[in-house]
Amino acid sequence: MANELLILTTGGTFDKRYPEGQWIKEFAFPEGHESAVEDILHRARVAADSYSRAWIFAEDSTDITDVQRTQIADRCAAAPQSRIVVTHGTDTMTLRIDPKTGQVSDQPNTASVIAARNLDKTIVLTGATQPAVMRDSDTDFNLGLAIGAALIASPGVYIAMNGLVLEWSQSVKDVDGRFRRR
Amino acid sequence: MANELLILTTGGTFDKRYPEGQWIKEFAFPEGHESAVEDILHRARVAADSYSRAWIFAEDSTDITDVQRTQIADRCAAAPQSRIVVTHGTDTMTLRIDPKTGQVSDQPNTASVIAARNLDKTIVLTGATQPAVMRDSDTDFNLGLAIGAALIASPGVYIAMNGLVLEWSQSVKDVDGRFRRR
Amino acid sequence: MANELLILTTGGTFDKRYPEGQWIKEFAFPEGHESAVEDILHRARVAADSYSRAWIFAEDSTDITDVQRTQIADRCAAAPQSRIVVTHGTDTMTLRIDPKTGQVSDQPNTASVIAARNLDKTIVLTGATQPAVMRDSDTDFNLGLAIGAALIASPGVYIAMNGLVLEWSQSVKDVDGRFRRR
Amino acid sequence: MANELLILTTGGTFDKRYPEGQWIKEFAFPEGHESAVEDILHRARVAADSYSRAWIFAEDSTDITDVQRTQIADRCAAAPQSRIVVTHGTDTMTLRIDPKTGQVSDQPNTASVIAARNLDKTIVLTGATQPAVMRDSDTDFNLGLAIGAALIASPGVYIAMNGLVLEWSQSVKDVDGRFRRR
Repeated sequence: MANELLILTTGGTFDKRYPEGQWIKEFAFPEGHESAVEDILHRARVAADSYSRAWIFAEDSTDITDVQRTQIADRCAAAPQSRIVVTHGTDTMTLRIDPKTGQVSDQPNTASVIAARNLDKTIVLTGATQPAVMRDSDTDFNLGLAIGAALIASPGVYIAMNGLVLEWSQSVKDVDGRFRRR
Repeated sequence: MANELLILTTGGTFDKRYPEGQWIKEFAFPEGHESAVEDILHRARVAADSYSRAWIFAEDSTDITDVQRTQIADRCAAAPQSRIVVTHGTDTMTLRIDPKTGQVSDQPNTASVIAARNLDKTIVLTGATQPAVMRDSDTDFNLGLAIGAALIASPGVYIAMNGLVLEWSQSVKDVDGRFRRR
Repeated sequence: MANELLILTTGGTFDKRYPEGQWIKEFAFPEGHESAVEDILHRARVAADSYSRAWIFAEDSTDITDVQRTQIADRCAAAPQSRIVVTHGTDTMTLRIDPKTGQVSDQPNTASVIAARNLDKTIVLTGATQPAVMRDSDTDFNLGLAIGAALIASPGVYIAMNGLVLEWSQSVKDVDGRFRRR
Repeated sequence: MANELLILTTGGTFDKRYPEGQWIKEFAFPEGHESAVEDILHRARVAADSYSRAWIFAEDSTDITDVQRTQIADRCAAAPQSRIVVTHGTDTMTLRIDPKTGQVSDQPNTASVIAARNLDKTIVLTGATQPAVMRDSDTDFNLGLAIGAALIASPGVYIAMNGLVLEWSQSVKDVDGRFRRR
């Protein structure tokens, strides 16, 4: 139950904001903003030195490339910590049901890329249905769930979403946007 | 100080939400959702029959057409109420400073279209810097400001934004997104 | 429509917070905290120099004394501004229906004390059903409503609550906690 | 990682609300309100049948009696679930530093009463620094943290607060209101 935990952020709905200025129509990851992880840990009254944090990049998960997935896995492998939480967009976090076929899609996903490394580490991916800046966001709960699991679970790659903690290969994002056991 | 007030909603940042499901990257005006005006009036403990409300359409104000501006003015003219608040996207609500020239842009704007009708009514336009669904939104204050002005001001077309209530021809949206007196 | 507006704060539900530490059971007005008015104006993207603000005292309105009511009226009289918003607890802001008799209570109230001065100023009192620190608070809307009215209304003493702007002598807090026209 | 989890609620800061009406000065546990746990699980997009929930009583933890502590332990023992989260006021949840002596107080606490039963179950206590109804609350994160731990940890009695998951006998609430390892 050691607290040597690392939180890696990669963007996704979790960290989207609505920019201010002129002729703005869409969410973005505004430059110069810290990750919403900082706001959440502040609200949670978590001491600043409890966990290490690093921002890898800020990307909608539908835009994450294979190179970027490798980059995430590299950071997990290189980290001195053996317990890691990764915030990530939900569409390519793990397996996904393809709405056209109703079957598990064969698209690339980050959990499988990390798992292929066979790291002797506990790695928990989480994300958000609504950005952290929204009144009705699930980010605070999800980050708590992921950290609670990451502090305790045996080595493996897990998904913490919708109140569940699942081994990645047993998890799937369904067509309604909710994660469930396969 | 009669309470015969009508609130017309036309979309804009005020009413944007973040949809849930798969492969979603942007804000939208989800079908089937009431205007955020309803949520705000509920939070404000305003009795349900205090004001009339009507949703004209839901559009980002950079996409509003001349036909739609005419539609808004028509609704103001036809309404039995003489005091009207219009929620509207901020980019074409009133005059705007063009970031390229630093001068007032000659783009169409809704306040001028309503004003051209010379209605003997008090009409106050307001909008939002952050959508009502955000923790840090200005919608609750702005709607209160607009209603406070609309209940009392003499006939005319006004802009209620950034804590100011200005006659429309004296108002301008500046390059930083804030409204100020011209 | 000049912006020479003063906001006076006097505590009330508007400004209550929940202290942190040990053996805490009740709301309070923690020392060292600015008024929630500052947070609301920040959320509303109101420029810092738009209005003057002053904190008179922080008191639950059921505890406000006659001396303190006089103090509020004195500040209104002495202020260089002719447009003033006062945030105040709701139980002794204006007239109140006594739940025991169903009639207007003859308890002291601040609006009547200010009105007795016959100041040639526009003074709007507002307050809150839920503190500003609550998710479901009415403070942002109420402050906007009060400011919108204060910027425009003729001299007099007004109550801005529950979406209404009423001359104080026409207003009453009912047994359910809502303000209505007498 | 089975989802056979029970959430028991016992009041505390977690579930305090601010009542509406007349002559109200303090927080309360309003009758007829569900626990804030329901709101949090809704925000977290947790399926309604994921966990069982039961409200034992609503009490500030400084008022909880020995009889009530026994009642909580009885419910843990009698529950068919072997994984249980208990929401509880923070002052008597576990060990506490007495501000007068700077030493661990010998006051009764609920974690020790549950632990004395030697149940073969995973029981995680959590609470709140700010009520769930506050904008700046830690409840969503804390409940997520407690559930993440409860789904995975070996039998024992744990405290999930301030981003930490600690065996109860190793945890202490310090004089600043924060929990830390003894």
